[in-house]
Amino acid sequence: MSPVHNEASIAGRMQAFVQELQRTIRSAVEALDGQATFREDAWDRPGGGGGLSAALSGGAVLEKAGVNTSVVHGELPEAVLADLLGGRSDATTRSFFATGISLVFHPVNPYIPSVHANFRYFALGEDRSRPVDQWFGGGADLTPYYPFLEDVQHFHRTWKAVCDAHDIADYEAFKQQCDAYFYLPHREEARGVGGVFFDGLRDAPEETFAFVRAAGEAFLGSWLPLAECRRAAPFGERERAFQALRRARYVEFNLLHDRGTKFGIDTGGRTESILMSLPPRARWEYAWTPDPETVEGRLQWFLRPRDWLALAPDSPPPRNAAGRT
Amino acid sequence: MSPVHNEASIAGRMQAFVQELQRTIRSAVEALDGQATFREDAWDRPGGGGGLSAALSGGAVLEKAGVNTSVVHGELPEAVLADLLGGRSDATTRSFFATGISLVFHPVNPYIPSVHANFRYFALGEDRSRPVDQWFGGGADLTPYYPFLEDVQHFHRTWKAVCDAHDIADYEAFKQQCDAYFYLPHREEARGVGGVFFDGLRDAPEETFAFVRAAGEAFLGSWLPLAECRRAAPFGERERAFQALRRARYVEFNLLHDRGTKFGIDTGGRTESILMSLPPRARWEYAWTPDPETVEGRLQWFLRPRDWLALAPDSPPPRNAAGRT
Repeated sequence: MSPVHNEASIAGRMQAFVQELQRTIRSAVEALDGQATFREDAWDRPGGGGGLSAALSGGAVLEKAGVNTSVVHGELPEAVLADLLGGRSDATTRSFFATGISLVFHPVNPYIPSVHANFRYFALGEDRSRPVDQWFGGGADLTPYYPFLEDVQHFHRTWKAVCDAHDIADYEAFKQQCDAYFYLPHREEARGVGGVFFDGLRDAPEETFAFVRAAGEAFLGSWLPLAECRRAAPFGERERAFQALRRARYVEFNLLHDRGTKFGIDTGGRTESILMSLPPRARWEYAWTPDPETVEGRLQWFLRPRDWLALAPDSPPPRNAAGRT
Repeated sequence: MSPVHNEASIAGRMQAFVQELQRTIRSAVEALDGQATFREDAWDRPGGGGGLSAALSGGAVLEKAGVNTSVVHGELPEAVLADLLGGRSDATTRSFFATGISLVFHPVNPYIPSVHANFRYFALGEDRSRPVDQWFGGGADLTPYYPFLEDVQHFHRTWKAVCDAHDIADYEAFKQQCDAYFYLPHREEARGVGGVFFDGLRDAPEETFAFVRAAGEAFLGSWLPLAECRRAAPFGERERAFQALRRARYVEFNLLHDRGTKFGIDTGGRTESILMSLPPRARWEYAWTPDPETVEGRLQWFLRPRDWLALAPDSPPPRNAAGRT
């Protein structure tokens, strides 16, 4: 893991933050699971820096979970620089520093939603204390199988509260960006029920860092209560089969559309860390589509952007309506 | 299904050929399986033409199989035209005609390899009988789980024989193109043991059509005997688990690297037909890699290009060596 020479710089503090957050989240997940523990893999990046991947599988609550951090630096290839900046920066230096945390949890119980979050910082310039350009990105999103409106609302309420407490954050805008990003055009459906997503936050770095830190610290509260609440819900082969079919959509999104995955694979990133996000099991059936009158078909209502926090409890299709079994 | 007005044109004869081949292959696969039958879906392309998708699942021998044909025509979008031609054609017309057959079989028994093949024809110009430009593409490749050298050799011997019987075909070159195409750079391994792959065959259209027809007709003979021979091989949970982990690599190739999949998804093709190639089940485990001393680890030896037909029977690592269980 690369040392940052100036620990007071945002780079240094963000690095310390993501590493601390990784430890906190790992402990909380192991406590939740009560059975499996994380396996730890430290890796070096040939060009500079490295990372720490932590993976758990076969747990009582988590079928597969990954929490990765990385701290990388060096010289960016020209093509990557151009691609990365997308015309948004005037920087001509290729010296970069990046650090972040990324996590994905795939639970055993189909009543617990899968969840993904990441928080990252990127800086250009030799001097870490005075970067030529720097920005933050990140977000969190939820992917339920058998959705509960109150769970979706709890998740969104958590992120709205974090945004509302920080002037530089805009829940409405970040929610919209999340909906736009986690969308499968070839299926005409969202990956899940969204959350927040932001990128290129380059104004007011100290204020933005404070927001990102608060967001990272809010993560466990956004999801852990859902896992605790649903972990004892009874399920059987039917629910597991549906979960596997839905996880195939998660795979399709990550491999066909996710920019981070594509960027990582194309630039020779560490494959196992990049693909840690993939679910443990997936299942494809030709032309599979759930009967709208079943509880499985009910999920479709949730797979389009909605103003979740404004919805009354009886807004979704009922779970136990006539025929919906 | 779009009518081709001049049945004597290559376009018309190729269309008739792929439709007949689809029927032949479907019958043979149903006879092999003895339990499941194909479900048929005819679809229309808004811009012109359509296709016939045939899918089978839950069979005694085939866990999932798809055989698709399409006959499409219309006006190509500028961007697609440029992308498609890649500077290889002088054609300025956007009027196109394309027809082809594509198939993927994923067997139940992990001792039977998965197989993929496609044969396709593309023409530019208003007059089907005198196209401004036209070319053929296609190929076949094999993806074993528990490989047998004799099976790999049978498959390659079949394709070499077809190529050797046609002056315009070159087994060595087509095999190399197959090895280059079906490769996962992020895993540093081949998708399987290759086969033949060719594209842009535009010289001598009649001779090329004769070759493509012979190749299509050779398909069943390249794979059916392997399925017949291995279908009774005993297997259990261990073999099925390994098969699912390997099928995850198949998914990774198709969604991350396959040009046909990307082209289809990006141009708004029929999702279910494009993704029919995906295996029925896949499994991802973090940093999974088989012990080289097991029979599962033995597969790795096969996942790099080799001159299969020149190999002696004892070339691969032994199946039952000390410790290889």
